[in-house]
Amino acid sequence: MEFQSYFPIWDKLNKADKDRITGNLITRKVTKGTVIHNGSMECTGLLLIKAGQLRAYILSDEGREITLYRLFERDMCLFSASCIMRSIQFDITIEAEKDTDLWIIPAELYRSIMEESAPVANYTNELMATRFSDVMWLIEQIMWKSLDKRLAEFLLEETSIEGTEKLKITHETIANHLGSHREVMTRMLKYFQNEGMVKLSRGMIEITDAQKLGSICDE
Amino acid sequence: MEFQSYFPIWDKLNKADKDRITGNLITRKVTKGTVIHNGSMECTGLLLIKAGQLRAYILSDEGREITLYRLFERDMCLFSASCIMRSIQFDITIEAEKDTDLWIIPAELYRSIMEESAPVANYTNELMATRFSDVMWLIEQIMWKSLDKRLAEFLLEETSIEGTEKLKITHETIANHLGSHREVMTRMLKYFQNEGMVKLSRGMIEITDAQKLGSICDE
Repeated sequence: MEFQSYFPIWDKLNKADKDRITGNLITRKVTKGTVIHNGSMECTGLLLIKAGQLRAYILSDEGREITLYRLFERDMCLFSASCIMRSIQFDITIEAEKDTDLWIIPAELYRSIMEESAPVANYTNELMATRFSDVMWLIEQIMWKSLDKRLAEFLLEETSIEGTEKLKITHETIANHLGSHREVMTRMLKYFQNEGMVKLSRGMIEITDAQKLGSICDE
Repeated sequence: MEFQSYFPIWDKLNKADKDRITGNLITRKVTKGTVIHNGSMECTGLLLIKAGQLRAYILSDEGREITLYRLFERDMCLFSASCIMRSIQFDITIEAEKDTDLWIIPAELYRSIMEESAPVANYTNELMATRFSDVMWLIEQIMWKSLDKRLAEFLLEETSIEGTEKLKITHETIANHLGSHREVMTRMLKYFQNEGMVKLSRGMIEITDAQKLGSICDE
């Protein structure tokens, strides 16, 4: 079954749990714009993206939104199953940003497996830590917005120096230029890529919208 | 040993793990103002507070701070052991806000126990979810600040209506007044209490600084 190759800890499940998951797995296609989960819905379950793109955001009482993170092919959405942990006391809305194919693991099933299985519980920990990192990054952006400006400025300076939009440079090198960490640079560059300002490939960063990148510096 | 009664899942550990923890546990006293952990330090380990108070915050490049959450007696600090999960990609500073007595469980030891033990991994999940909820609440405060104003207004209105600073009211009732959840109210009221504006006791909320509470509404 195709699901197996998308679910990262499939091989760590025992036979009984594998059977329970395959027997209860839901396949769903959603069109762009569909709200898959929000706080007033039942606990939807864990979503695994086969193809497409989701956006996780929070909504104010006045209808304002802020994107927390995006999910792409092979990403797993945990907070659509927030009922599996009693300490999750916040509501997130999950919406399809593109037509999306999903698998849904029912929340109750996942919880009962996680309760008994250290690998599943630890995998869930790593999932949550990833989203936590996304949100912490967002707070820093909201509060201080400094390093992204510095990165944008650095990239524009480099294109000017090198005389090309295609920069042969590693994230590590940029981190060393700016006194930051490679992981932080990678995270920001991916954000720039999502926003259409750069295109990332192995050892290469192409500036695809210098004007938009410049507008970051001027904010 | 006293530690056992403070560590919530002690009874779920096996004999070998109990021995490893008691054999490697570190007891530490820190004075008010001590930075116990930050991003440039080694992975400190999990902290369990015996007495005192810690503050978790992030720091901008320019030295600005924002408090993420506070930790009190019996609270466990996970992010001082962020090395136990590779997906934690952010740095938090932990500082003693009062003279504090701690136990420290070495990070490597905790990780190796968590890897094998579903109860420990699931407990860690709940810990992280609790902090995640704190931080999500903070984002909402930063972004929108609406519900806390509504709560502050409600409390002042009630003191005026009842003619007393001591309100006999449950968090549930307030939630029902404001169209919110009890948990959210409890969280906000505890925040007000930390800031010295109210004093909470069973079935009672005492307004101790009405002026400061009023300043929230006027922000």
